[in-house]
Amino acid sequence: MLRFLAVDAGGTSTRAVALDAYGRTSGYGRAGSGNPTAVGIEAAVAAIGRAAEQALASRETPDPEPRLAAIAMAGQQSPVFLERLTARLAPLGVDRVSLQPDLLGIFHSGTHELDGCALIAGTGSVAARIREGRLDRVVGGNGWLLGDGGSGFWIGQRVARAVTAALDGLGPPTALTGLVLASLGIDPGLDGVRGRNGAVRELVDALYARPPVELAAFAPLAFTAYADPVARAILVEASADLAALLAAVLDPAVPGPVVGGGSVLVHGMLAAPPALRQDLAPLAGGADIIPVPDGLVGAAVLVLRLAGIPVDAPLFATLQTQVRAPVP
Amino acid sequence: MLRFLAVDAGGTSTRAVALDAYGRTSGYGRAGSGNPTAVGIEAAVAAIGRAAEQALASRETPDPEPRLAAIAMAGQQSPVFLERLTARLAPLGVDRVSLQPDLLGIFHSGTHELDGCALIAGTGSVAARIREGRLDRVVGGNGWLLGDGGSGFWIGQRVARAVTAALDGLGPPTALTGLVLASLGIDPGLDGVRGRNGAVRELVDALYARPPVELAAFAPLAFTAYADPVARAILVEASADLAALLAAVLDPAVPGPVVGGGSVLVHGMLAAPPALRQDLAPLAGGADIIPVPDGLVGAAVLVLRLAGIPVDAPLFATLQTQVRAPVP
Repeated sequence: MLRFLAVDAGGTSTRAVALDAYGRTSGYGRAGSGNPTAVGIEAAVAAIGRAAEQALASRETPDPEPRLAAIAMAGQQSPVFLERLTARLAPLGVDRVSLQPDLLGIFHSGTHELDGCALIAGTGSVAARIREGRLDRVVGGNGWLLGDGGSGFWIGQRVARAVTAALDGLGPPTALTGLVLASLGIDPGLDGVRGRNGAVRELVDALYARPPVELAAFAPLAFTAYADPVARAILVEASADLAALLAAVLDPAVPGPVVGGGSVLVHGMLAAPPALRQDLAPLAGGADIIPVPDGLVGAAVLVLRLAGIPVDAPLFATLQTQVRAPVP
Repeated sequence: MLRFLAVDAGGTSTRAVALDAYGRTSGYGRAGSGNPTAVGIEAAVAAIGRAAEQALASRETPDPEPRLAAIAMAGQQSPVFLERLTARLAPLGVDRVSLQPDLLGIFHSGTHELDGCALIAGTGSVAARIREGRLDRVVGGNGWLLGDGGSGFWIGQRVARAVTAALDGLGPPTALTGLVLASLGIDPGLDGVRGRNGAVRELVDALYARPPVELAAFAPLAFTAYADPVARAILVEASADLAALLAAVLDPAVPGPVVGGGSVLVHGMLAAPPALRQDLAPLAGGADIIPVPDGLVGAAVLVLRLAGIPVDAPLFATLQTQVRAPVP
């Protein structure tokens, strides 16, 4: 019978699973970033190739080979990337590759329904309305320079700016200062030079030496320090931005579940302790958001649908159970 | 008698003037950016060299050569840059080069007094308290990623974000949209792709293809469109940030003039029409700010002081009259 390959190619890691038409999996693979925008076409193709090889190498029956692969990924999808990826997967028995938006991967990791919304807040932030299984409206996702309100970068940059301002005497003191300086190994008591605070100089030098997007690494510090008024204000504003992002795609005429992905949303906002949650803007107007850890179940849903196999509630339940990392 | 060279090495252009101990100038030069942070050490040394050559080539009396040069410039001052610059200027008869902070160049372009404050809002923003002719406290100037509230970059990024949000339906419509899209040659009515607004895609692609700091080019659009509520809100917040920056260095124990430089401050905030000015935060608590076009007069003040020549009110008045670009 037909076999399939489902891949969730993220900015940090890539997950792949081999499955059959009944949703039964026969292998799981994992590798580094499979996003060409993040790491370049070469490295992304290599990572997806490695994850796919692992997923297929561990399958119980060597034949038949998988024929169709669906890759859920963020960003624009270039023909060059598709061509290179197809060439890489062909020796593994994959004769067709379909690139799918990460928003659909996340959405279908939480539901088999064809209508609803997805909200992602990881390093970036983006929301979509899904209608009849397709992206009907996409809002946000414009990157760290121009948008992504409430994202990990957005929170991390505000943390870094708040610490810089506090050290400069331009902003209030904050518990974030100690956390950020400690994470970078900077001595808060450094002597100043030419009228300028010493720790600010070190902080500025350290942060400009990295790619801007790495400021997202400070986002968890805001959740750690949520009792601090400065940290809390950043998180409250972030939650309001995410609520506005979701509100922009919600449509009473298109009812359905709301699925949420991305570490800031899943491990931060949706997992906030009650003392913080009471201050955050309610997402989805207070309706429940289904959190999902990644887009791999959704990639499996998408690959079966592409093959003309309807994914109903029982098959979706099978996929949810089967598509997960093996316990080592 | 001794002759001197004064240079204002900015991020966009470099100005140089040759002068004597009485503040009489004998030559003027101009070249591209002389800031090593902006264009690299090689190009910065070359630009300062060209400007100095022009200033010295046009002097009336070939002898004596200038012996001492003061270079006012932003950013950290590396020993390598000083060494290279000294080697470049030696053949012109300069036997000592002193690198000076741009904040002192701006301050002394507006006053010969030894105490006071300087505020600069150009592409970036920074403020300083000056005490006995030295930088006593410097605040801000931490660059586009971590600070520079109220600067040209800060305003320009908010303009770009407001337009992105308006096109995405996340923010209110604004007159800035037409101005920004027209400046980039983007058709506002572009068809969308996969649920995403077409003009947003084009805008995002165009702006990520440039260095981030070039967003500062949009700052003048906010002043052009000041009657628009979105543009006005950006300018009001910018003025509040600049007021806070200045407030952080003002000290009743160190009275003195406040000198302002940078295009956003001089041509924007301080030149705002009354209908806009009424909404802006008062700078320097409503006290007058002395606007200056650049730091060249200040570099001349600094070079004379370094030579042990006191700059009093009459000598400063001579410098203000003499140190300017010749009318072509």
